[in-house]
Parts: sequence; structure tokens; C-alpha cells
Amino acid sequence: MATTADAAPPTAAEAVAKPAAISRIDPTFWWVGMKNPKLQLLVHGPGIGSSTVTLNYDGVTLDGVQKMESPNYLLVNLTIAPTAKPGKLTLQFQGGKKAKYEYELRARNTDPNRTQGVTSADFVYLLMPDRFANGDPKNDVVKGTFVGHVARDSMYARHGGDLKGIEQHFDYLKELGVTAIWPTPVVENNQPKASYHGYALTDYYAVDPRYGTNAEYVGFVKNAHAKGLKVVHDVVLNHMGSQNYLFRDRPARDWFHQWPGYTRSNFRDAAFNDPYAATQDRKLFGDGWFDLHMPDLNQSNPLVATYLIQNFLWWVENTGLDGYRIDTYAYSERNFLMQWGAAIQAEYPRLGMFGETWVQGTAQQAYFAQNIFPEVQGFKSNLPGVTDFQLYYALNEALTKDAGWTEGINKLYYTLQADWMYQDPMRNVLFLDNHDLSRYYSVIGEDFQKYKMGLAWLLTCRGIPQLYYGTEVLMKNFSDPDGKVREDFPGGWPGDKKNLFVAAGRNAQEQEAFRYVSTLATYRRTHPVLHSGKLMQFIPDAGVYTYFRYSDAGTVMVMMNSGKDEKAVDLTRFAERLNGFTSGVEVTSGAALADLRKLKIPGRTAWVVELRK
Amino acid sequence: MATTADAAPPTAAEAVAKPAAISRIDPTFWWVGMKNPKLQLLVHGPGIGSSTVTLNYDGVTLDGVQKMESPNYLLVNLTIAPTAKPGKLTLQFQGGKKAKYEYELRARNTDPNRTQGVTSADFVYLLMPDRFANGDPKNDVVKGTFVGHVARDSMYARHGGDLKGIEQHFDYLKELGVTAIWPTPVVENNQPKASYHGYALTDYYAVDPRYGTNAEYVGFVKNAHAKGLKVVHDVVLNHMGSQNYLFRDRPARDWFHQWPGYTRSNFRDAAFNDPYAATQDRKLFGDGWFDLHMPDLNQSNPLVATYLIQNFLWWVENTGLDGYRIDTYAYSERNFLMQWGAAIQAEYPRLGMFGETWVQGTAQQAYFAQNIFPEVQGFKSNLPGVTDFQLYYALNEALTKDAGWTEGINKLYYTLQADWMYQDPMRNVLFLDNHDLSRYYSVIGEDFQKYKMGLAWLLTCRGIPQLYYGTEVLMKNFSDPDGKVREDFPGGWPGDKKNLFVAAGRNAQEQEAFRYVSTLATYRRTHPVLHSGKLMQFIPDAGVYTYFRYSDAGTVMVMMNSGKDEKAVDLTRFAERLNGFTSGVEVTSGAALADLRKLKIPGRTAWVVELRK
Repeated sequence: MATTADAAPPTAAEAVAKPAAISRIDPTFWWVGMKNPKLQLLVHGPGIGSSTVTLNYDGVTLDGVQKMESPNYLLVNLTIAPTAKPGKLTLQFQGGKKAKYEYELRARNTDPNRTQGVTSADFVYLLMPDRFANGDPKNDVVKGTFVGHVARDSMYARHGGDLKGIEQHFDYLKELGVTAIWPTPVVENNQPKASYHGYALTDYYAVDPRYGTNAEYVGFVKNAHAKGLKVVHDVVLNHMGSQNYLFRDRPARDWFHQWPGYTRSNFRDAAFNDPYAATQDRKLFGDGWFDLHMPDLNQSNPLVATYLIQNFLWWVENTGLDGYRIDTYAYSERNFLMQWGAAIQAEYPRLGMFGETWVQGTAQQAYFAQNIFPEVQGFKSNLPGVTDFQLYYALNEALTKDAGWTEGINKLYYTLQADWMYQDPMRNVLFLDNHDLSRYYSVIGEDFQKYKMGLAWLLTCRGIPQLYYGTEVLMKNFSDPDGKVREDFPGGWPGDKKNLFVAAGRNAQEQEAFRYVSTLATYRRTHPVLHSGKLMQFIPDAGVYTYFRYSDAGTVMVMMNSGKDEKAVDLTRFAERLNGFTSGVEVTSGAALADLRKLKIPGRTAWVVELRK
Repeated sequence: MATTADAAPPTAAEAVAKPAAISRIDPTFWWVGMKNPKLQLLVHGPGIGSSTVTLNYDGVTLDGVQKMESPNYLLVNLTIAPTAKPGKLTLQFQGGKKAKYEYELRARNTDPNRTQGVTSADFVYLLMPDRFANGDPKNDVVKGTFVGHVARDSMYARHGGDLKGIEQHFDYLKELGVTAIWPTPVVENNQPKASYHGYALTDYYAVDPRYGTNAEYVGFVKNAHAKGLKVVHDVVLNHMGSQNYLFRDRPARDWFHQWPGYTRSNFRDAAFNDPYAATQDRKLFGDGWFDLHMPDLNQSNPLVATYLIQNFLWWVENTGLDGYRIDTYAYSERNFLMQWGAAIQAEYPRLGMFGETWVQGTAQQAYFAQNIFPEVQGFKSNLPGVTDFQLYYALNEALTKDAGWTEGINKLYYTLQADWMYQDPMRNVLFLDNHDLSRYYSVIGEDFQKYKMGLAWLLTCRGIPQLYYGTEVLMKNFSDPDGKVREDFPGGWPGDKKNLFVAAGRNAQEQEAFRYVSTLATYRRTHPVLHSGKLMQFIPDAGVYTYFRYSDAGTVMVMMNSGKDEKAVDLTRFAERLNGFTSGVEVTSGAALADLRKLKIPGRTAWVVELRK
């Protein structure tokens, strides 16, 4: 069991001191004119639970207050009429503890460029802010946080990367053809250990000071938008960091899943909807802790649910971010997931949303997205998209196993076929690897031919392609045993010997990799047929898999030969899509394909061919 | 393309000569009082197409006649009122060809023991009639059929087995604990080559004369019922034999899928519902021929659909059979499948039905059964059950691969979990092998410990267990390259040196195998908790997989240790099901388990434990 007895320095939020009687109120501020006029304030302060509250503000009604098990919390329920004006709402606390708190009600930002959504027109770049680039060495170590040093040679220490570092490389990302940035969580993780990864939130309302301030994050999103880059914000619903003030001084015991001793999840999402599941297996999956330092939230407590829903409305409204990636999606409570998704989408219908579904099987993955199923085991997902682990497994197999009836590249065909279960599979996120997986280039045995095949697939198949930072310059390593898949991007730190952000710093193969990705990504960006064009796939034949993206604007043929030998392909089989086209141009090389009737495709090759009349 | 120019002797049906002008009428007879009062007669005779028809029979209306492309066919559409009496209906053909035909209308058989259905209370024994036992050597070679000899040393020749041979071993099957017999098709296959397998029907209305007469088959079903055995009839909807009179003298070209030359199916059911399928791939799957000698029926032709529907109503009504196993289910036309299933079930709601779904993936398999999906790609299955290939794959992997997160025995867990997609997975048919697959005992490396594990699973997991003939006495061999998975049952032929039908003929291990199966099957038959009891499975732990079948009548715990080493198991994890039980008895050995708190299970072992208070 994580102990709360550690002598902890004040958290960053605590450092921004409020009048002593009230240490903080969450949400830290709010807006007038939200679709849902209700607001529940969680007031924290020593003994505040015994207080009563009054207020007097045009358009704001006090619906009541609610005590918690802890005397240090008080819930204040408000209704904010659409007619209310922005301003400072004075909350008068009386009775037990006396205090006055000026709570800010802001005007909503009506800039239409905010919250653009994330769609299949995008190319998402996933990075770890601590490991990408250090733009501001002054915030590497921040007073009042647990970690007093950086140690770039340790995979579990902080390295100093930050928001400014990312911003300084917006041009690099643009050059690569990226249209959206997904940093792993930027919210405060003031934990003594492994705080760099970001999935142990210690303050739901603060950016981690090692990355920047809240204001800097707002600026980061604004600047990204100005550059034509969107921002995906990584959110964690299932658990929090053990140093979160909400865990160190729990509002009530039932805010967390309780166990007699530290009890880990069994990590088997299958139990979530197994019709034969043992109660104990299902409970262990959902209520077991993800990690010793990550208490598991009890979202079936409606107060917890409201806290989380408000928080994730707050981040959108406050920053104008474009999409949410939802960590450990399946581990949350089923009713909460439906409620959370509905609330966020009701307020922000344009927001992009995709959940991490590191699950087994195409049906199981579809179960956690908007799909064609009725409610099963009390759950009907309203999640627009998922991280497409099934196609990740399939692509991996396509490049590492020989083609068989269902094996190798045929697994790609079969996995994509299963799209009939989704409401809209175009919202799924494709990837070759991520921060939890061995790096793509290592998995394929550092085979550069295969490397290009996977990239060609990533950028032409259906859905939203996502690249993990550094894949474009052949960063490598395996997730086990040393976590070196989270190494620093070379060139991101002052004094780095190698700088892969610039062509001059790359060797020939790194440069060719970068060129290959950027050529394809740029082609993709400028050819909507690869975003929203229809897809047609043909059954692989002798290890050669061919699919088409097509629309009124044109047709792109992708042909992948997974075998090591050259194959002669008779294209008459594709007549349905070749109809009217007589030649083509391979997009990544510029090579002409003068005659579309018969072709010989070299081994381990993917062609991306724009068809010509 | 199969040629129709072979000099063929008359088919068995033709041998039963009718007045020259009319060679036959299908259905060969019918009943009054069917739920659907419509009947469409397909009249065949040289030049009969130019005739007109009259009739005069109380309660029977002539709705009209319809010419076909071939002059040798005429369709006669009738309506038979419920008030019509059984008898001979005289059809007068006039005009082009003059003829009189006495068409028989029978009374329906109201014996309530007919058509009992096939449920999870059953234990199905799959056998090939040509290869099980030769009860009547006189019908080994039948005049007027293509094959003039038997050759028991050839896997592709006829061996002489027949219905009488099966009947002679009803007691054997009873001793084994079988409750239902599924012979591969018994309907006429008068093909020059490989006619023994039965899937190339040459006369939809005749039992193959090498197996017996129609009357003998009716008797076979009746005798089986008297013994407490049900009969599953194997039906083929997708194709017929090239020697079928309907192909040799086609009613119309559009009765069959036409190709410029012999064109095989691609065998990819994935194309059936792939949202990205190429038209050509989908067409090739459904319309391509299954084999050179098996013309593919065009069931989108409503006349073909009616012909098939009537035929499969006819077999149920004529014989009282209990269930249909539908061959190559996914290869038929989607609208036809829905129409056929609805028509059969409307007339015979008790009939058992399961389709062969040799497909890839749990969702794809569920798609072809009654499931929770809406209509997808124009198809919504009404098939009650399927042959559960996914669990076959999983069981296979459980016994041949080490346990991993998803591999080995964990695949069993995951595959069963996917049952949430079915309307009722209890109607699925479980199996360890069948006539198309390598034999179970060979696949598991002739490991007798593993052998027992698979059988224990087969007879205690959910659904309808099916055993392939000879597995109970350790018959072996691989399907490739020589087809020796279809060898004769030793002892089924007069003079066989070895007779495994009797204990005295078996060696010690064969006898132990037989005893193991019969002990479990008998226990299963007498313990409804294994038919209809609920199922609860626990996530496998270190290669040990435990599940329970339970009801008010009792609880059976099945524990499978897939690893080679003994494992200590702490059963407190199963408290939810062990509640109140303190000891148990292992059903196959009679061994007592005195203390249910902690157990050590040997490697490669399955325990079937009846729990005791």
C-alpha cells in the first residue's frame, strides 16, 4: 500500500499559496455560458467541512453544500445561469471556519481555431516532453518538487525536456509533415520516483513546472495552432499519483478502490466483458491498482466522476486543445466512462478523442470504441476512436513473419477486415510503436527495406497515423529490460554531440529515413484521398498485399511485397480500381510506372503509386 | 470447367424409371398440412417445357406453370389448402408433351419423437458412413453407379461402409455415451471420383444406394430414436455434384455460377463481409467453384432457392431427423441463407442447426451465427449454432504451445471470453478434430496425458461436444498428404484383423482411452449441470486454467494444468464458486480431493471434480 506518511515537500499547487483557511478550490476557475450550468466546487482547507457558504452574484445560485468524510473538504454546488456575467464570485465561508474566497468566472474564448479535433487528415507525433528537447534549462529542477536533479543517463530520472523545447522544434515537425503533437501527459507529476512519464497526476489543475506553467501551456497550444499544428492532450482517468493532495488527504475513503494491502490489477481487460467472468477477476481488473504509486480512483462515486468530468472540460476550455488521448481506457468504471464521454462530447463535439486499448482481439478492441454492438455487460462505448493495437500487432507480424493463410502480411488483411464492427474506423489511430513498446526499427531487425514498408502503410492506410518521436531518424531499442525506448532525441539538449533535428547532423540512412517519412507525410497532407478517400483491399496473393485509396480526386495504389524475392504481379485482378488508369508514379521515389498491366515488385518493398490516366 | 459430356450410366434416380415423358418430379412427394401451403414442382422430361397442366383435386390449386430455359423442364406452382386430403394428385400434361403423373400427397407424421433437436445435452459422434462399418456387403457396388469396385487401401475409393453398419454399432455408441450421430452426407454422390466423401450431391432426393435405400434411412432414424440416439443430417447448400441431373441437363444457365473456365473459390470468407472488399474477391469467394466436380449453385435465382428449401423441408418431414449440419455455410448467397434458415425454422422450430464456419477470428465466426450484431453487409444470420473452429484452434494451441499472456492455454480463456457476441453460445459445436483436419491424437504428438486433457475439456465446456469417429480408440494420422484421417474403423468390416468395437480387441491404452471417454460422456449425460449449468472461468494462472459449471443441482470444477510440471494451486481465489464445498471427487478416476483449500495438480493434467459439501 502506498503510504501517505512520506515527508513530502509542498506540491506545486500548494506552493501557490491561497489564504490559509482554504488551500484550494477545484476547478481552480470556471466559465459562464457552459452548456451544463451546474458546477461542483471541491473546497480544500483545514476544517473547512464544518463551514456554511453564502454568495451573492447575479445569475449564480447556490444549490447547497455537502460535507465529506474528511473535515478538510466541502463541496459547494452551484448553478450558473447563461445570463451570468464573468467576474469574481465571492464565496463567504462561515460557521466552523471563516473565510472569503474570490472565485473567478471567466468569459469563454470564442476563437474558432480552438479545439479543431483530430481526424484522419492528421499525422500525429507522439513524444515524451521530458525526453524530446530541453528549451528552458532553468525549469529542469523546480523547488518544491521531489526530484532535485536531472540525470540523462538514467531512464527513470528526469532529463529536463519541456514545452519550450517542443515549441523550438515546431519547424522541425512541420518539415517532417506532422500536423498534430501528442505529448505524454504534461500535467503535474510530483512523485519521488519515475515522475518523468507523466501518468501519475499529482495536481489535476497544474502543468508540471518542469515543463512550464499553465500560462505557458496555453501559449503552447496557441502557438502550435498558429503554426498549423494541433495538440493532443494525454489524460488519465483511472488512477492518480500517490502524492496527489486528494490521496494524501483523502476527501473520503470511497474516493479510491480499497484493498487490504497493495493489490495490482490483473491487467486482463477480457474480464471487463467476459460473460463467464469471475466477480473477483473483474473486480481485480478494474479496481486493482495499476502500480504501487498510482491509487485507483473509485469513479462509481458520483463525486469522483464529477471531479474528473469538470477537470477535463476545464482543460479544453482553458487551452483550446484539439484532442484527448485517454490512458488505460478500459480500466475505468463502465458507467463512468459512458458518462464522462457523453459529458465531454456534449460540450465539445469537435474534440478529437481516442483511448488506449491495449487489448487482445479485433472484437475486444471494437467493444471499447463506438461500434455496432448493443450494450454488452452494461457497457456501450461512446469513444470515437482507439489506439489500434490490433493493426499494430498485424503490421508487426506482416514484417516479421512469412505470409501464410492467416499469418504474416495476411494478418494485416484480416485485421483490417474486422473494421465492420466499428461505427467509424477512420477515427482509429494507427501506429508502429509508442512509448510502452519496443521501437519499430529494432523490432524489424533494423531492416531499412522493412522500415520503409511500415511507414508507407502507416501513412496510407485508413485512420489517423501516429509516429513515435525519433522513428523518423531510426531511433531504436527494446522496451525490455532497460526502458531505452524513451531516450532523448539527439540534439534536443544544449551541447548534444549529435543533432538529428538538422540534416547536417544525420548520417545518410537517417537522412533517407527522414526524407522518406517527410515525403510521404507531405504527400499525404496535400492529398485528401489519403485522409478520407475510400479504401479497397485485395486479398494478399503470395505475400503481396495491394490496397487502394480512392475518391473523385484520384486513386492511390499501395502494393506491399512482404517476401524477400521479387514478384511478378498481374494487375488485371485489380481492374475494378485500375479502370481508366494506365500508368502511375511511385510517390516516394518519383519513379514512373509506365504500364499498369504487369509489374515486377522487388522483395521487401512497398510502393505508393499515384495512378494516372 | 466440369464437362457434362462424360458417358455416364443412369443415376440411381433415373434407374427408378418413371413414364418416359416425365423422368422425375422434385420434390418426389409432399405432404398436406405444411405451414407453407405453397409447393413448386420441378418437372423433368424431354420436351416437357412446352406442355400445359391441369389438375382436379379438392384443396389443391394450380397457381400456374413456368417454362425454363431448357425445354426439358416445367415448373408447376401449387397451393395446398390445410383441408386437402392425402392421396394421389393427378397431373395432366397436355399440349407439347402429353403425360399423366400421379403425384403423392402424404399425411404428416405426428410422432412427437421425431425431430428432437440437438442441444448441449447431446454428445455427437461424427463418422463417415463409407468408413465406419460395412453392414451390408451386397450394396458395396451398385449397378448403375460410376464406381464399380471397392478398394479399402485407397483413401479416395469407396470402402463399402453403410447405414446398416452404423446401425449394427448403435450399442457401441451407446456404450461410449454418444447421444447423437452425425454421418457425413448420406445422399447420393454418384460421381466417378472420390464419391465416398458425400459432399457432391447427385440426387437431392435419394440416399446413396451404397449406403442404403431411402426407406432404410427412414428406418435408420427411427431405430436410432428407439435406441435413444439422435441423427444429424449433413446438408450441402452451396454446390452439387457435377453428375447431378440438374447440372447434366441444366434447367437454365442461371442455375449455376458461370465462369469462362473452371474458377475456384478463393476460400476467403473474410471477403463476405469485409467493408473494404473488392467486388471481384467477394464474387470469387461466393461464386467460385469449391472444386472442379462441384458446380456452384446460383441461389440468388429464386427458383434455385425454392428447390433447395423444399428439399431440406422434405428430408426432415420424410425422416424425422433431429438436426442439420450445414456444409460450407459461408459460401452460399447471403439472402438465400437468411431465407433458407427462416423457412426451415418456421416449419421445424425444434430442429437442431449448426453450420460449418471454418473461418478466422471470433468475431467472424459469431457473424455467421445468431449474434448481437445488426445486419452487416446485407447479412444477419439466423443460424442457431456453428462448428466452433475458434475454440478448436484454441484447444489445439492450449495443448501444443506453452502458456503466454495470450498464448497456449490462455488462448482458450480469451476465445471463450468472446462468447459475448453470440445470442446463445451453448448451441455451438465443440470438437477436437473432424474429417477435414488432422486427427487429434496425432496433432498432440500421441501424448496420452494431453489426450485426456482435451477430452475432459470437450465434455465439460459449454456447447455441444462432437467426437470424430475413432478418437475414442486413439485413431491417428494427418490430413496431409494422404487423407488417412478417413481410415476405416478397425472391426467395421467382416474379417478385420483388429476389432476396436469390443474391449477384447483393444490394447491397454486404447481401452483406457475408450474408458476415459465413456466415463466422462456417461457422467455428462447423467449430470445436466454439464449441459445447461452456468459457466464461470477464471483467468489462467501460470498455465493452470480453472472453470466451473454450476447450477442448483451441483458444481463441477475443471482444472487444467497445461505445463509439464506439477503446480501448487491456492484455491482461495475461487471462493466465489467453492463457497460451501469442502471436498470433491475427480470424476474420471474416482479419486477423492479431501481438502479444497490447496491442491497440487500434476503437469499435463485435467481434473473434472464434482464438488461435495
